[in-house]
Amino acid sequence: MNRVETQERVEAAEAKLSAAMGSGDARAVAASYADDGVLLLPGRPALEGRAAIEEHFRQVFGSWQITIESETEGVMVDGDLATLRGAVVQRVRRRRWPRIAGSMALRHLLVLRRDGAGDWAVAWDTVQQGERTGGLLRRVKGLLRR
Amino acid sequence: MNRVETQERVEAAEAKLSAAMGSGDARAVAASYADDGVLLLPGRPALEGRAAIEEHFRQVFGSWQITIESETEGVMVDGDLATLRGAVVQRVRRRRWPRIAGSMALRHLLVLRRDGAGDWAVAWDTVQQGERTGGLLRRVKGLLRR
Repeated sequence: MNRVETQERVEAAEAKLSAAMGSGDARAVAASYADDGVLLLPGRPALEGRAAIEEHFRQVFGSWQITIESETEGVMVDGDLATLRGAVVQRVRRRRWPRIAGSMALRHLLVLRRDGAGDWAVAWDTVQQGERTGGLLRRVKGLLRR
Repeated sequence: MNRVETQERVEAAEAKLSAAMGSGDARAVAASYADDGVLLLPGRPALEGRAAIEEHFRQVFGSWQITIESETEGVMVDGDLATLRGAVVQRVRRRRWPRIAGSMALRHLLVLRRDGAGDWAVAWDTVQQGERTGGLLRRVKGLLRR
């Protein structure tokens, strides 16, 4: 597999994770992580292991519908280790009354490992608040420029 | 170089960066990054390139004295790519009146690349707020357990 193909596989693993978020399927989200995967959310204890990550998303999805739009800003791969960073716009909508909704500009940085079967799983996932102002504005400007 | 030695080199690169922070020397901090290194701070625009990183720290160090205590929680290496994550306690003290001071529990996740000379430079550095409560408390407990 050449470098470009490998990079595409890594990006596909991230896209699958973002899509699983949108589906509200905690098991599908957790399946994107390695068995010992770690999810690091700002200001919260680390979620360690696929089971903890699944339980977290089960609770989140119980109350919130989430959609994720992510844009990859960089990928690096060597051997069976890869890392990807990108900008994320996360939209949330509460499932019950009051049906509050909002969007957040985030960044994520994923570290992925390739397993024996050649599949990339997320080993570490860190999420960060994006630029405080203009996250959405920038996106709108981006749309206008197209 | 065996796996353990390589891992130690990666940890040494992080330790050098943390030490440079404490020295208040913006040039020394920037020297830990690759030429095209990226520093991602929560809620702020990405700092891209060693020059931008140096300028940022020059401004920060002009007003603040910073000390960093970091504890590595994981390292992964394959070939010339490495990643390190850890807990950080950052203490800040304003150099001028009012001499406010404080400490923050943070996490960082670094991606490092090995250059032709065999040196590890930080390619991406992302900083995240740590656990909202008990960051310091946990450390104190940790000390008591020793």
